[in-house]
Amino acid sequence: MISLRCLVLLLSLGLGLVSARADEGMWLFNNPPAAQLQQKYNFSPTPQWLEHLQKASVRFNSGGSGSFISADGLAITNHHVGADTLQKLSSAEHNYLREGFYAKTQAEEQRALDLELNVLESVEDVTDRVNAAIKPTMNAEAALAARRAIIAQIEKESKDKTGLRSNVITLYEGGSYQLYRYKRYTDVRLVFAPEQQAAFYGGDPDNFEYPRYDLDICIFRVYEDGKPAHIDNYLKFNPAGPKEGDLVFISGNPGGTDRELTISVLTDARDRQLPARMAQLFRREVNLTSYSARSLENARRARDDLFGVQNSRKALGGRLAGLLDPMIFDLLLTNETNLRKGMKDHGQDSKFKEGLAAYDKIATAQKAIVKVSPAYDYYERQLSFHSTLADYARLLVRAPEEHNKPNGERLPEFRESSLDSLELALFSTEPIYDDLEELQLTDSLTDLIGHLGAEDPLVKQVMAGKGPADRAAELVKGTKLKDLAFRKKLYAGDSAAIKAANDPMLSLMLLIDPAARAARKTVDASNETKQQAYAQIAKVRFALKGASSSPDATFTLRLSYGTVRGYEENGKQIPAFTNLGGLYQRSTEHENKEPFELPQRWVEKKDLLSLGTNFDFVCDGDIIGGNSGSPVVNREGEFVGIIFDGNIQSLVLDYLYNDKIARAVSVDSAAISEALRKVYDASALADEIEGKTK
Amino acid sequence: MISLRCLVLLLSLGLGLVSARADEGMWLFNNPPAAQLQQKYNFSPTPQWLEHLQKASVRFNSGGSGSFISADGLAITNHHVGADTLQKLSSAEHNYLREGFYAKTQAEEQRALDLELNVLESVEDVTDRVNAAIKPTMNAEAALAARRAIIAQIEKESKDKTGLRSNVITLYEGGSYQLYRYKRYTDVRLVFAPEQQAAFYGGDPDNFEYPRYDLDICIFRVYEDGKPAHIDNYLKFNPAGPKEGDLVFISGNPGGTDRELTISVLTDARDRQLPARMAQLFRREVNLTSYSARSLENARRARDDLFGVQNSRKALGGRLAGLLDPMIFDLLLTNETNLRKGMKDHGQDSKFKEGLAAYDKIATAQKAIVKVSPAYDYYERQLSFHSTLADYARLLVRAPEEHNKPNGERLPEFRESSLDSLELALFSTEPIYDDLEELQLTDSLTDLIGHLGAEDPLVKQVMAGKGPADRAAELVKGTKLKDLAFRKKLYAGDSAAIKAANDPMLSLMLLIDPAARAARKTVDASNETKQQAYAQIAKVRFALKGASSSPDATFTLRLSYGTVRGYEENGKQIPAFTNLGGLYQRSTEHENKEPFELPQRWVEKKDLLSLGTNFDFVCDGDIIGGNSGSPVVNREGEFVGIIFDGNIQSLVLDYLYNDKIARAVSVDSAAISEALRKVYDASALADEIEGKTK
Repeated sequence: MISLRCLVLLLSLGLGLVSARADEGMWLFNNPPAAQLQQKYNFSPTPQWLEHLQKASVRFNSGGSGSFISADGLAITNHHVGADTLQKLSSAEHNYLREGFYAKTQAEEQRALDLELNVLESVEDVTDRVNAAIKPTMNAEAALAARRAIIAQIEKESKDKTGLRSNVITLYEGGSYQLYRYKRYTDVRLVFAPEQQAAFYGGDPDNFEYPRYDLDICIFRVYEDGKPAHIDNYLKFNPAGPKEGDLVFISGNPGGTDRELTISVLTDARDRQLPARMAQLFRREVNLTSYSARSLENARRARDDLFGVQNSRKALGGRLAGLLDPMIFDLLLTNETNLRKGMKDHGQDSKFKEGLAAYDKIATAQKAIVKVSPAYDYYERQLSFHSTLADYARLLVRAPEEHNKPNGERLPEFRESSLDSLELALFSTEPIYDDLEELQLTDSLTDLIGHLGAEDPLVKQVMAGKGPADRAAELVKGTKLKDLAFRKKLYAGDSAAIKAANDPMLSLMLLIDPAARAARKTVDASNETKQQAYAQIAKVRFALKGASSSPDATFTLRLSYGTVRGYEENGKQIPAFTNLGGLYQRSTEHENKEPFELPQRWVEKKDLLSLGTNFDFVCDGDIIGGNSGSPVVNREGEFVGIIFDGNIQSLVLDYLYNDKIARAVSVDSAAISEALRKVYDASALADEIEGKTK
Repeated sequence: MISLRCLVLLLSLGLGLVSARADEGMWLFNNPPAAQLQQKYNFSPTPQWLEHLQKASVRFNSGGSGSFISADGLAITNHHVGADTLQKLSSAEHNYLREGFYAKTQAEEQRALDLELNVLESVEDVTDRVNAAIKPTMNAEAALAARRAIIAQIEKESKDKTGLRSNVITLYEGGSYQLYRYKRYTDVRLVFAPEQQAAFYGGDPDNFEYPRYDLDICIFRVYEDGKPAHIDNYLKFNPAGPKEGDLVFISGNPGGTDRELTISVLTDARDRQLPARMAQLFRREVNLTSYSARSLENARRARDDLFGVQNSRKALGGRLAGLLDPMIFDLLLTNETNLRKGMKDHGQDSKFKEGLAAYDKIATAQKAIVKVSPAYDYYERQLSFHSTLADYARLLVRAPEEHNKPNGERLPEFRESSLDSLELALFSTEPIYDDLEELQLTDSLTDLIGHLGAEDPLVKQVMAGKGPADRAAELVKGTKLKDLAFRKKLYAGDSAAIKAANDPMLSLMLLIDPAARAARKTVDASNETKQQAYAQIAKVRFALKGASSSPDATFTLRLSYGTVRGYEENGKQIPAFTNLGGLYQRSTEHENKEPFELPQRWVEKKDLLSLGTNFDFVCDGDIIGGNSGSPVVNREGEFVGIIFDGNIQSLVLDYLYNDKIARAVSVDSAAISEALRKVYDASALADEIEGKTK
């Protein structure tokens, strides 16, 4: 924290929030930072350059990014993005997550159970059409309904017309609406994954740290009509990797940033939301760790869940630490104060008056959210029911009711434009382990009682006169939802069929549905109010500062850029690159003990490797969670690396950008080539990627 | 949980809370269960038998039990009781906690840094004298002061007269006061410890489980005047161990039970206290686990803390699960309802009226405690400051103030009778690791803000304008309290010297002291009210049911008894004994992976061992935390085993006893002898223990 404090001091004393030369921003492809690139790097991306990179970029709907790297549909992402698929394809006999996987022939490629990839095909501005549907006389609830209806209509029209997945995206907190059209790939097959120990070398201790020695990659191939899809826009793979000082671009789907939030909302995040989420993560991590320690098979079953929990714990912990640092919080406060002062100085203009009033509207709406948050968190967000079976039950209980509504009035996840994705999730054949379901359900029911109280009337109904362990066992053992055919049958039926099924998990979800929906209604209406208010603030910010900044991230495609360079931490210079030799050195320093032990293949193949080959590297591009798997490309648009992490100092990027010590961490393309050829005997795959065949 | 539910059903339908033949009770040595033993086992312990066992029993003030097993001062306890000493004697070079220790000669025995052993020499009933000091006109605060004063006076008189450590113990929740006099041993030297992996084989997953394969022992020798102390009352060691069905006795210091608590207090435990403590343990476990994973040296430094946290998490989790089980809670409720009904039926007797009123007094007092609990927990109990240095600072800040008060008005830990023990702790030379101090302080300060809020005025003063990490670094790096000479100098000085020291940790403790003391005052007064009320209920219970039950445990010497026998769990018969061969089998089943890997010595010495030797065993004696290390003796008073755990079903014994599946787990004396001789080449030690030398 010391060095971050110094940085913040520097920034606040010196150049303001961001240096004029800083590589800030998660830019829209239709509004790239042309001036900045020209000024600092003397580089002007052409429309063709941008379109090629856009269409070579792939969104992994399980929560990450990736890119096409061959004409025959090879798509590369991170191992930790592919982990969900690896986990679901694994069994007690074949632990692909731990042991890795390589399909030497296309016939051996394994189809993912419920993975969807999206490629952004086109973007259309629909701001005016959306805003026109909202009348000034509408209250928040009516406005929300009107907005939902017009968005659903736009999406459906687009999908009907183009056949493409169509989503209206809200940018600038409601200042702009854009229709994004995606090509969907749902036949996605696993081609290659290293051992998790190679991908995630150093485990939780090294996560969000640097230097690193991780081969965090996973390679899939997309199919159409049972054949490898032909891809026009794929990235040329440059096996030389980048050099220190190089300009690089990152094309991916940052999940979300909070740089526009008001202090009232940030205060709630600091004092309530983040501490509550951390408490959840702590209990889940202990629960999963203790389960995993009991046997190797348990560890296998829980691996992906545990990774996710540990990863979030570090990420949110970093964010909370940022907000708890008065230096950072005061800087955010100063920014808001200055903006509000700017508004006051234009006191006569109604736009500025509305901007000022918007802060109060947001604070009031946030209070309404806080008030219903126990019900919203535990029932609507299902914190009480950490269980895949409960997730199925929720979708099945709501589906008939939602499907009967006009498209525009449905909850967004039940809109026509979302149904393909919903069904992919609901009809997944992922393995479900009763013991793990019971374990997590027991724990989350215990948590529910701890927060809402054993005597709460709805809690009592949820528990049905039993303790958490007995109730969880009854639900998991009693439900038939593990049966895919049963789920399909119910999904095709009506509400009466759901009730008649007399399934304990369905009954539970029916029981809590009114409370869950009521809480969601309040939260959605409050968020609508907030969104309108944020749009008013955005308008004023544009008026005062111009529209030169990029909007907060929304898990849609963005372009970041930056320089490959190291940084100084606590007086120590951290170089930009590590090399393969460093991996072996780190293992020796830790007596090759978990989580620093070398995978067996890496021990055996050491002598074949050029140990000076670059392994991982850092650059100062602006990224956040969701960017995992994003390609790093050079001026020529060539693939030179793949983002897989940020250092611990980058976690605060959620709230403000800095380029002094925050760094994005990538696997170097040179290491990918070297490892595929020499460690994994996958030269055929390397040849395809490097364009040496066909 | 299934089988426990069945049990409770059985109990509530059948024989009431406890079967007439059940081996319930943690009995006072001066009120042994003579009738029960005679009736069920045809055994009558003589006064000599009882006195011998009492004086051979040793309390480890670090939180456990033990016994003398040689005339030359050998005292045996659990490895996990000795762990605190093993941790403090260890360094980066000598990891006795992990690697074990054996002093082949007395010269090699290593003196513990701050370990105190107590032997109960005599007991005197002082109930009348204590009660006479409380006038009916006093309010709770005045009554507390009067009680503290008379207790301090009794203790001081006793210590001045006998030189023995003298403590007045409150039994039956205030129904009885007893003066306990202890011989203290403070020159305690480490003789033998196995590897932690042998003592705690199976780690956290196997903790509170059965069958087990743990050699959870640690052997010390007490010294007087620089020579091994001569011990008249030591237990004869029987290397044959017990047999299935044997009557056995357990003599130890159960830490505390809650069998007398009212429903209002139990409800608070279920809904507030236990969930809050679990949340604390979750975050501490994650914090320590993640620190430990970073390097082997980190793991060594945090080992004992981490074990303690994991152990508490399982223990309190088991208790909470018990209270959350409506079957159990309803049974506790029924017990109270029946007792209250019994009181109502004698409505004209003032004693019964007072008994009924006592329930309301307790509920009101509990509400007062809940109200101040944030300040009490975070400031007085120092949940905000998980740091040994902060603990030192607290004692140093309070010492001059408390020492200036008359003995009877001091906080109990500063009474004359407690000063020896306080100074032993304050002047410990245990190693203090800055990184671990900072880590835990950062986390506990984060927790403080999460609970009391960043804007709370006192929290703001505590944080001094910094984030948790920076503030923790400033406190740990800035304090001089690591320096023993500095602590001694301050302890010898006055309040002015504390203030003049200008030490950040002392300043912090000075800052929070008024809030901490105020909260403690409220809690102490409320507890006094509760104690008086519980005493009234106890009086009525005696009147209705007779004084045949044993009082709640108070970390003082108690005698339990029971039968060596297995149990049935989920339809499966669990045998009473495991044997040495089972250890090797379990390791094989888990591919010898952590925490099921065999210590190297056990691998090498396998062929020398009689694998059929009994290893661990269970009996149905009534135990709870604090009993760890208690000797298990047979009718002849011979040492046949040592308690080290209870099974998971025994955790609910805190609230009610059952003998159907709750079991105490012991190491068999046969395994101790076999392991010392054949695995550890410690025949000389085994000979001394078995009386084969001298």
